[in-house]
Amino acid sequence: MRQSQLFTKTLKEAPADETAVNAKLLARGGFVYKNSAGVYSYLPLGWRVIEKINKIIREEMNAIGGVEMLMPALVDRKYLEQTDRFKLDVGFDVLGKKDKKAPYALGWTHEEVLTAIASKYISSYKDLPKAIYQIQTKFRNEARAKSGILRGREFLMKDLYSFHVSEEDLFAYYEKVKEAYFNVFKRCGLDTYYALASGGEFTISNTHEFQAFADVGEDTILYCSQCRYAENSEISKLKEGGKCPNCEGNISKSNAIEVGNIFPLGTKYSEAFGLEFQDEEGKKKPVVMGSYGIGVSRLMGTVVEIYHDKNGILWPKEVAPFDAHLIYIPSRDSNVKKAADKLYDLLSPYGGSLVGRQKEGVEVLYDDRADSTAGEKFADADVIGLPMRVVMSERTLEEDSVEVKERDSDSGKIIKLEDVPKCFQNSSAIFQKT
Amino acid sequence: MRQSQLFTKTLKEAPADETAVNAKLLARGGFVYKNSAGVYSYLPLGWRVIEKINKIIREEMNAIGGVEMLMPALVDRKYLEQTDRFKLDVGFDVLGKKDKKAPYALGWTHEEVLTAIASKYISSYKDLPKAIYQIQTKFRNEARAKSGILRGREFLMKDLYSFHVSEEDLFAYYEKVKEAYFNVFKRCGLDTYYALASGGEFTISNTHEFQAFADVGEDTILYCSQCRYAENSEISKLKEGGKCPNCEGNISKSNAIEVGNIFPLGTKYSEAFGLEFQDEEGKKKPVVMGSYGIGVSRLMGTVVEIYHDKNGILWPKEVAPFDAHLIYIPSRDSNVKKAADKLYDLLSPYGGSLVGRQKEGVEVLYDDRADSTAGEKFADADVIGLPMRVVMSERTLEEDSVEVKERDSDSGKIIKLEDVPKCFQNSSAIFQKT
Repeated sequence: MRQSQLFTKTLKEAPADETAVNAKLLARGGFVYKNSAGVYSYLPLGWRVIEKINKIIREEMNAIGGVEMLMPALVDRKYLEQTDRFKLDVGFDVLGKKDKKAPYALGWTHEEVLTAIASKYISSYKDLPKAIYQIQTKFRNEARAKSGILRGREFLMKDLYSFHVSEEDLFAYYEKVKEAYFNVFKRCGLDTYYALASGGEFTISNTHEFQAFADVGEDTILYCSQCRYAENSEISKLKEGGKCPNCEGNISKSNAIEVGNIFPLGTKYSEAFGLEFQDEEGKKKPVVMGSYGIGVSRLMGTVVEIYHDKNGILWPKEVAPFDAHLIYIPSRDSNVKKAADKLYDLLSPYGGSLVGRQKEGVEVLYDDRADSTAGEKFADADVIGLPMRVVMSERTLEEDSVEVKERDSDSGKIIKLEDVPKCFQNSSAIFQKT
Repeated sequence: MRQSQLFTKTLKEAPADETAVNAKLLARGGFVYKNSAGVYSYLPLGWRVIEKINKIIREEMNAIGGVEMLMPALVDRKYLEQTDRFKLDVGFDVLGKKDKKAPYALGWTHEEVLTAIASKYISSYKDLPKAIYQIQTKFRNEARAKSGILRGREFLMKDLYSFHVSEEDLFAYYEKVKEAYFNVFKRCGLDTYYALASGGEFTISNTHEFQAFADVGEDTILYCSQCRYAENSEISKLKEGGKCPNCEGNISKSNAIEVGNIFPLGTKYSEAFGLEFQDEEGKKKPVVMGSYGIGVSRLMGTVVEIYHDKNGILWPKEVAPFDAHLIYIPSRDSNVKKAADKLYDLLSPYGGSLVGRQKEGVEVLYDDRADSTAGEKFADADVIGLPMRVVMSERTLEEDSVEVKERDSDSGKIIKLEDVPKCFQNSSAIFQKT
């Protein structure tokens, strides 16, 4: 995409009312815009990051048999009253101007709605197991909404629900989800710990959280880096500096951001909504359920909290809004612009569109602006933080070359024009880290 | 996808409380589930249709320079009070349990929010034109929500907004959007008329609607089939049977469903939010805007209203949830199942996943169920309505063949197994219509 078409511009200063690092950097780069406390717009660059994360999630959920659908944001009170959750402060009420009583809450989770739907389609052991997910805007009436997109009143979430004949089958699937979640976070550039956490009222055992270590994190995790055992401090009896119960390692402590969680729900919801199945002997039993969440927008914020330097964001490759930032350094010699245009067309035959894009294409953000200086353009590129910067100037064109620099390196390399596509096919061969 | 993994089943009878054809057929096929009046879940099959429509819309919007983003559903009252729209009955109020006054409405349109955002990024004629869109869940407090997914309280919508230096530039873009909209509807299988409609309080001239003729439609359109001129009866002085003012044709009348609309907004919103630009002479002027909507879920409902027969839906190819329904007719000879499995793997190497799917693959719904009869399976296939049915039975396997039938034909053809992929590459050569 040509930067002139982008809608947003980078900001020299972060908005004065933002305190969280993720919010400051995302606002400066033109990724998000705060409409109200905890309520953000995802601007074109930010929306591309969200779509990259969604793609990763869909691939990993589909790989473990997940099937996607979409439930309503308007959750009828009949669902939440069944489990006594309509009254919870966490939910927003929704009502028309003439309504005395709110007919709906805004969904912050969908156990009730999906269990009611499932009772229409699941009646036999032959219908099980099933795994259903959605990626949806969700809502929580957060009192403190000061962490940027880490804790919003409106946020994007993937919620998966699974249905089983037995606890044994549930826990076998639980392990599959665990692996899929590790894949999701790894592809987003995050090293996560799988931490034991408290079992809520609605679960049959402890739950588990996926925690990414970061100073800003609201959770405290006790962990062993040797065997990677971890517990949330809320329930842990482990002591910092103590011995890990599973290995020879020592227990450390870190702040962490919860990017995902998995809950064994058991039969709480199936019993509330009469979701039963007939087993092989014809006996009726409640369906055993699990639920599994990933905060999509929180994940984006976590990546920024972990991947940034003083100049801006450093997007990991799979979630970067574009693969490369092609920068044209304005010149009186019109051949420089022509050569930059040509390189853009060569690299990005589909204009960087995420839809209808062919595998061979590279997604390029092309800084084609004629009225910015090289210094301004380099500063913008650092703020936006694409993994690769490709610079076309008078000086590089003289050598039929561009300067290619990775966002996390201090220096670039002069690469012949014909070798540029190779940078994207096998960048590690060209950019060997020392 | 294997039908055993699908979550839903077809229903013999439509739910008793549904009166609209689209709702009855979509519920019977397992495409949607009604949670409350006007509030639907999109089940896995229905969600695939929505994603197909979204893909078409994205491709056509991107082709006219549209850039995608996402705005919040929670629209702060500060935005809507600026244009005196917070009070409107059409909006739902959103508030926490302790709030006396609703801090938000649920967005039914986003002119205000986007104009406020744009004022941060647009300040010069060099920043114009711009075209920004989103595909989003929207909300209207509809008093009568009885038309299935044609008129919901919660619905999916694509809204595009454009920003220009002049009315002239706006109207030039307006024509581009018009062509893009015709492409969208045509790819969804709909023949639409471009009808003149009333200009609202917020527009600088008349608006235009894209109308698909259908008995159930709430609009009445006066039109000439010869030159395709059309007007909404609300503003029209044309008379049925009269002469068309533009050609020799006669004026006819039809009920129609409004699937899209385009509004020249002028400077109403830019003036309300101080969205100005400096022109080439350094003079400040308000930005000229347009807005353009497509009801995504309504479009899905319209397709069903137009494409169905007494047995179920007939999905047009580009919006069908799968390309083909592969049906295994249960047999004691285990080779039949093996051959069906093999054909499924051959046609659908990625399991019919919409994500990570390669171009060569065919999206197949595979009825692998062992405990249904041929008659039940054929009835299910008609209800679901995929464009192509491929049947593997003892009888066809004897001839190393399958029976292939198009949904809108009465009879199928016996096709050799090795020729099956060709049915999807060039079906018209194999299925010549008489």
